[in-house]
Amino acid sequence: MHEFEFIDWIKRQLPKPHADVVLGIGDDCALLDIPHAKQLALSTDSCVEGTHFFTGTDPLAIGYKAAMCNLSDIAAMGATPSWCTLALCLPAWDQQLACGIAQGVLDALAPFGVALVGGDTTRGPLSVNLCIGGYVDSGRTLRRSAAQFADAVFVTGTLGDAGAGLLLRRLERADLSISEAIKLGMDADILPSHRSTLLARLDRPSARVAYAQRIGHLAHAAIDVSDGLLQDLTHVCRQSHVGALLDVASIPLSDALRASFSLSAARGLACTAGDDYELCFTAHPANSAELIAIGKELGVAVAQIGLIQSGSAVECWSSDKVLPVLEREGFQHF
Amino acid sequence: MHEFEFIDWIKRQLPKPHADVVLGIGDDCALLDIPHAKQLALSTDSCVEGTHFFTGTDPLAIGYKAAMCNLSDIAAMGATPSWCTLALCLPAWDQQLACGIAQGVLDALAPFGVALVGGDTTRGPLSVNLCIGGYVDSGRTLRRSAAQFADAVFVTGTLGDAGAGLLLRRLERADLSISEAIKLGMDADILPSHRSTLLARLDRPSARVAYAQRIGHLAHAAIDVSDGLLQDLTHVCRQSHVGALLDVASIPLSDALRASFSLSAARGLACTAGDDYELCFTAHPANSAELIAIGKELGVAVAQIGLIQSGSAVECWSSDKVLPVLEREGFQHF
Repeated sequence: MHEFEFIDWIKRQLPKPHADVVLGIGDDCALLDIPHAKQLALSTDSCVEGTHFFTGTDPLAIGYKAAMCNLSDIAAMGATPSWCTLALCLPAWDQQLACGIAQGVLDALAPFGVALVGGDTTRGPLSVNLCIGGYVDSGRTLRRSAAQFADAVFVTGTLGDAGAGLLLRRLERADLSISEAIKLGMDADILPSHRSTLLARLDRPSARVAYAQRIGHLAHAAIDVSDGLLQDLTHVCRQSHVGALLDVASIPLSDALRASFSLSAARGLACTAGDDYELCFTAHPANSAELIAIGKELGVAVAQIGLIQSGSAVECWSSDKVLPVLEREGFQHF
Repeated sequence: MHEFEFIDWIKRQLPKPHADVVLGIGDDCALLDIPHAKQLALSTDSCVEGTHFFTGTDPLAIGYKAAMCNLSDIAAMGATPSWCTLALCLPAWDQQLACGIAQGVLDALAPFGVALVGGDTTRGPLSVNLCIGGYVDSGRTLRRSAAQFADAVFVTGTLGDAGAGLLLRRLERADLSISEAIKLGMDADILPSHRSTLLARLDRPSARVAYAQRIGHLAHAAIDVSDGLLQDLTHVCRQSHVGALLDVASIPLSDALRASFSLSAARGLACTAGDDYELCFTAHPANSAELIAIGKELGVAVAQIGLIQSGSAVECWSSDKVLPVLEREGFQHF
C-alpha cells in the first residue's frame, strides 16, 4: 500500500456518507454544505513525536488523542463539531503507522458524527495536524472573554489524572526514577487498576463535547484544560479583565489519583498538569443547579471550584489548608 | 518575545477586520459568519523542512509559498478563499523565524483578502501547516471528476519554471554538480535575469485564484499543477474515467526556460516537475475563445495543450517531433 492506496483505504473506512459532505477526500478541496444561521467554529492543533507523544506510542492512540484535543477546542466554544482534515507527516512510508493513526482519528470522531473530509500526507518527522470545524448559534458561544464579575467557576470531571499518567509513563520508560517520583509525592506502591485508570486518562482523553453543547445558554466563558488549570483559567481572566479565586480543596480528584499521590501532590497535578481536556467554565451562580443537573443527565460530574472576582490573576486558597505543590503554572509550548 | 507575545504580534499585523470574522486569533476556536447558499471548500497542506524547502530558506519565503500552495488548491476548485489557520512547528523558540514565516503567510493572503483566523505553535521539527477555507456556488465547482469526452485541455501561464528553479537552487547548494545539470539538459551559461526568473517561480509562485473564480461556468474539471502535469492530469483522467492526449509542443514554456535548457529537457520539466501552481483544466472546445479572453483581461496566458479522449491514461505526442525527457511522471510524496 502506498500513498494513493492509503487515501483509498481511508475512504473505505469512513462511516456512512455525512449529510453535509458534498465532496470528501480525493479532490483539491473538500466541499461541504453549510447550515443556515450558524457560525463556523474553527480550530487547529498539531501533535508532534517527542513533544506531544513518546516515540513508539501506539499509532491508534496517537490518532485518537490528536483528534480528541481538537474536539475539545470545539467543545470549549460550545459548538457542535462537524468535519475535520488530517495532515499526516511520516518519516518514511509506513502502512501500519499511517493506517493506525488514521483509524485512531476515525475512532475518536465517530461518536460525534464528525466527517473526515480531507487531508495531506507528507514525508518528514512524525506529526499529526488536524483542523476541525463545527457550528454554533451565535448567541450560544462560550468565549474566553465572557467571564463576569461574581460568576462561579466550574470544572467537569476530575483534574490531574493525565498528569499523573504522564509521570507513570515516564517511570515505565525510565525517563523518571522511582526516587524522583516519590519526591514528587507519588506512592511507592500503586494499585494496577489505579495505574491503568491514570494512564487511560493520558492516552484516551474524552472531550466534553456533549456537555458543552448543552450549556451555551447557561454559561459565560469556557476553556478546555489542556495546559493546566491555573494557566488556562488565567487566559480566561486576562481576556475577561477579571480575577479568579480558586479553592483548591474543591477541585475534584479521582480516587485513583488520591490513592496514588499525596494530597498536595495530587492538587499540584490538578492545578498545573494539563492534558485532562476537561471543561473549565464560568456562569452566574444561580445557574449552578441546572448546570449540575445537565451533567448528571449526561454522566458528567460538574463541580464549583471558585469565583470570579476583581483583579487580573488567579489566586488560590484551600478551605482545608492543604495547598498544592506548584512547580510551574502550566505547560509551556517552548 | 515568546509564544503568547508572538500571538499578540500576529494580531497586530492583521489587516483591517475581515467582515466574516466574528472572533479571530486567541480563543479556543475562531468564529466566522458563513455566507448563504454557498458551499464551503476546504484544503490543508503541510510544508516540512528538508522535504518542501531547504534548511536556511528565508522565513518569509517559507510562509509565502506555504500559503500559496494552499490558495492554489482553493483556486483549483473554483472557490473564493476566505480564511485560513496556521499551525507552526519550530525546533526551539525563534522570534525571527516565527515572525518571518507568519509575515510571509500574511503577505500571500493579503491580495486575496483572506483572513488568518487561528493557529497553533508547537515545539518540533520545522514545518508549516495551513488549513484554508473558501466559498463557491454549488453549480460552479471545478472537480477532478468532471472532465468530459472531447473536452479541450488547457493550462494557465508557463510550466517547468519552478522545476528549473529547483535545479538552479540545488546547483547553488552544491547538491547537484554542473556536469550533472548539463546532462539534464541545462545550458552551461544561464543569463542572470533568466536565473532569477526561474528561481522566483520556485520561491514565490502565484496561485491562479482570480482566474479560476471566473471560469466556473465555462470549465469542467480542474487541478493545480503541483506534482507535475502528467501526474496531475492523470488524477483528472482517473476520476473522470477518461483519457487525455497531450501535444507537448503546445505546452507553454517561458523564455527563461527555453533559453536555459534544451527543448526536450524544458518539455520534460514542464511535464513532470510540478511546483508551478498553474491551473490545468478541461472545457468544451467551444468555450476556448472566452476562456482565453478572460485570461487576457486578468493578464493570465491560457493555452490549449490537448484533448480528452477515451481511455484512462495521459498519452503524449509532439506536433514538432521533439519529445520531452521524462525521468519520472511527477513528484512522489514518499
